[in-house]
Amino acid sequence: MLVNTSVIYAKIPTEYPLPGEHLIVKRDDHFQPTLNDGDILLRNLCISLDPYMRGRMRAADIPSYVPAFELNKPLETRTVSEVIESKNPAFPVGSIVVGLADFSQYAVVRKDKVANLRILPNARDERIPLSAWVGVLGGPGLTSYASLKAIGKPKAGETIFISAAAGAVGQLVGQLAKLQGLRVIGSAGSDDKVAYLKTIGFDYAFNYKTSKTLDELHKAAPNGIDIYFENVGGETLDAVLTVMNTHGRIIACGMISQYNTTEKYGVKNLLQVITKRLTMQGFNQAEFAKDYFEDFQRDITDLLINKKIVYRVTEVKGIEAGPDALYGMLKHGSNTGKLVVHVADL
Amino acid sequence: MLVNTSVIYAKIPTEYPLPGEHLIVKRDDHFQPTLNDGDILLRNLCISLDPYMRGRMRAADIPSYVPAFELNKPLETRTVSEVIESKNPAFPVGSIVVGLADFSQYAVVRKDKVANLRILPNARDERIPLSAWVGVLGGPGLTSYASLKAIGKPKAGETIFISAAAGAVGQLVGQLAKLQGLRVIGSAGSDDKVAYLKTIGFDYAFNYKTSKTLDELHKAAPNGIDIYFENVGGETLDAVLTVMNTHGRIIACGMISQYNTTEKYGVKNLLQVITKRLTMQGFNQAEFAKDYFEDFQRDITDLLINKKIVYRVTEVKGIEAGPDALYGMLKHGSNTGKLVVHVADL
Ligand SMILES: NC(=O)c1ccc[n+]([C@@H]2O[C@H](COP(=O)([O-])OP(=O)(O)OC[C@H]3O[C@@H](n4cnc5c(N)ncnc54)[C@H](OP(=O)(O)O)[C@@H]3O)[C@@H](O)[C@H]2O)c1
Ligand SMILES: NC(=O)c1ccc[n+]([C@@H]2O[C@H](COP(=O)([O-])OP(=O)(O)OC[C@H]3O[C@@H](n4cnc5c(N)ncnc54)[C@H](OP(=O)(O)O)[C@@H]3O)[C@@H](O)[C@H]2O)c1
Repeated sequence: MLVNTSVIYAKIPTEYPLPGEHLIVKRDDHFQPTLNDGDILLRNLCISLDPYMRGRMRAADIPSYVPAFELNKPLETRTVSEVIESKNPAFPVGSIVVGLADFSQYAVVRKDKVANLRILPNARDERIPLSAWVGVLGGPGLTSYASLKAIGKPKAGETIFISAAAGAVGQLVGQLAKLQGLRVIGSAGSDDKVAYLKTIGFDYAFNYKTSKTLDELHKAAPNGIDIYFENVGGETLDAVLTVMNTHGRIIACGMISQYNTTEKYGVKNLLQVITKRLTMQGFNQAEFAKDYFEDFQRDITDLLINKKIVYRVTEVKGIEAGPDALYGMLKHGSNTGKLVVHVADL
Repeated sequence: MLVNTSVIYAKIPTEYPLPGEHLIVKRDDHFQPTLNDGDILLRNLCISLDPYMRGRMRAADIPSYVPAFELNKPLETRTVSEVIESKNPAFPVGSIVVGLADFSQYAVVRKDKVANLRILPNARDERIPLSAWVGVLGGPGLTSYASLKAIGKPKAGETIFISAAAGAVGQLVGQLAKLQGLRVIGSAGSDDKVAYLKTIGFDYAFNYKTSKTLDELHKAAPNGIDIYFENVGGETLDAVLTVMNTHGRIIACGMISQYNTTEKYGVKNLLQVITKRLTMQGFNQAEFAKDYFEDFQRDITDLLINKKIVYRVTEVKGIEAGPDALYGMLKHGSNTGKLVVHVADL
């Protein structure tokens, strides 16, 4: 019998998901799951908190690219976990896996869902922190690596602008672009984040909360922007459209400014898409796995181990810290780099 | 000495270009141009009126993909014309050409601008009306043909929605899509236009002025839209975004609803670009010429001559009718199909 603490999805938020209201922490003192053939039991070590989770907090009948979370169940999220019981020969006890599981200390993954897990052969490599498997070598990493290549088609000498640049995705995009000879500009929501961006090679970075994005872009990119890595949407997109160059590419990764509000911002400058012959393309990183995963793992592992890139992580401790951390990321940008919950040591 | 009537660009409009104020008709009773080496004199036969001309009516210091018109000079536009005097051996007297020239009865084209003209070897082919060279076999034709292929990437069985469907571009897009096995939906601004669309094979057409675009799209495309051929922008785009299918393509051809207003519409549903992994791509038809022009001329000529497509033209008579016709197109959609001014017979 185990004690198991979880983050439960208790209510559909209309704006921000509030700790204690929409997301509640629940402790089960008598956790004693029964495993059937093919099932496994995980001890979660590191849990990923990602902006897209907000999109799963919706009424179940609204279709989207990921199913809505189930009410009164634990949130589902990416975890790095140890298999501690197994009725599945493909996942022996002691394996370290990454994939979708409950936002809990312990999580059963049923036979029909184990395909969402992948064994990490290098999980015990000390040069790679566990959190990397949900960060720079996980979803945010693939997002940055593949979308920059496939949609951004960067050429040395071009200029890229990245919003939410000090986050899980943005910080890697900036460094990869820099390695490819681009001029790299980033915006973030605090002076500390801006300072961080400068230490990792951004040519220009600014705090969008204390300055005007358009003014900063005029200063930072007098010759315009060739690639916009879009993480925030709304007002930022409207400003960037006016300084894009002909044949510019907009990598439509996320629009976090629109996730927690019922008052959507209306983008007024889309005519620029035509006059400047822009391409704006949305994507879901999972769809890049087939073509990019192998190269991505090899290249990024190599860059990491050879210290050609750095990757900042904000780690909060314990399941209980989950709801506040997610709220903090969405509401205040309280994370720098990849946000994870440290649940247990390996 | 000739009598030469022109449409003069007299004032920069902030909203619609008004006949008599921004565009004025001027008659020169003593037109006696001197040709230098390389210059030619044209007798214009057919003059094209196109929505993009509005974009050239701006302050000269605002950069864009085409230069601003010069104040107090004739508008420049596409014409089909006869060479009636020539100091350029490449353009002998009697040739019929298509290209950029003054919005006048007679127009000098100077040596440095004759590269904008192209001789039409088939201009006297009776199966092809002269207006075709600025319509179905000219810019609007190339626009439709190439952008549908290059950006739309249509597949049989898919559904396309075309706004401003009864115009120069839209009517051809619809017929080409139909020939490729798509379900074709169109919107236009009058019941007559809707009736016309049905006669040329549109599966569903509606009058967006007397019904709600979103309601109509729900009815017309219960399984969603794979390709949106965007001619109008604004509110229409906002509605279409919500019914696009995953991996849909938006061919960003024009946004005519935004050309004549200082109150830009704010598009609120762009998050759909990400959740549905849409691609939205702007283009300028001229950039397609290199890769598509030859195939375009061959295929469309073939389809026309074999009556596999029809192409409606609205023809107004005489230079004097130009300003009203342009205003009418922009303000009231008074054209069905390609709008041209008939200036003289061949
Ligand atoms: N398409 C895909 O497959 C895919 C995959 C992964 C991520 N994404 C998207 O990529 C973006 C970044 O994700 P991430 O994992 O790297 O998250 P992150 O950047 O580590 O964290 C989110 C950050 O967004 C910023 N932010 C929050 N609200 C904002 C607002 N209203 N306006 C501007 N910025 C705001 C905050 O930083 P500041 O302090 O700078 O405001 C916050 O730290 C998100 O939009 C996410 O949805 C998409
Ligand atoms: N990117 C390129 O290279 C390229 C090349 C050619 C054309 N274009 C664009 O393609 C579009 C169609 O051009 P076209 O030559 O075929 O013109 P067109 O459709 O023959 O004429 C314009 C039509 O637009 C409609 N319209 C006008 N104001 C409107 C409004 N506020 N909302 C909705 N519809 C409105 C009217 O029809 P209704 O009665 O249906 O309202 C009008 O007849 C334009 O946006 C143009 O700028 C782009």
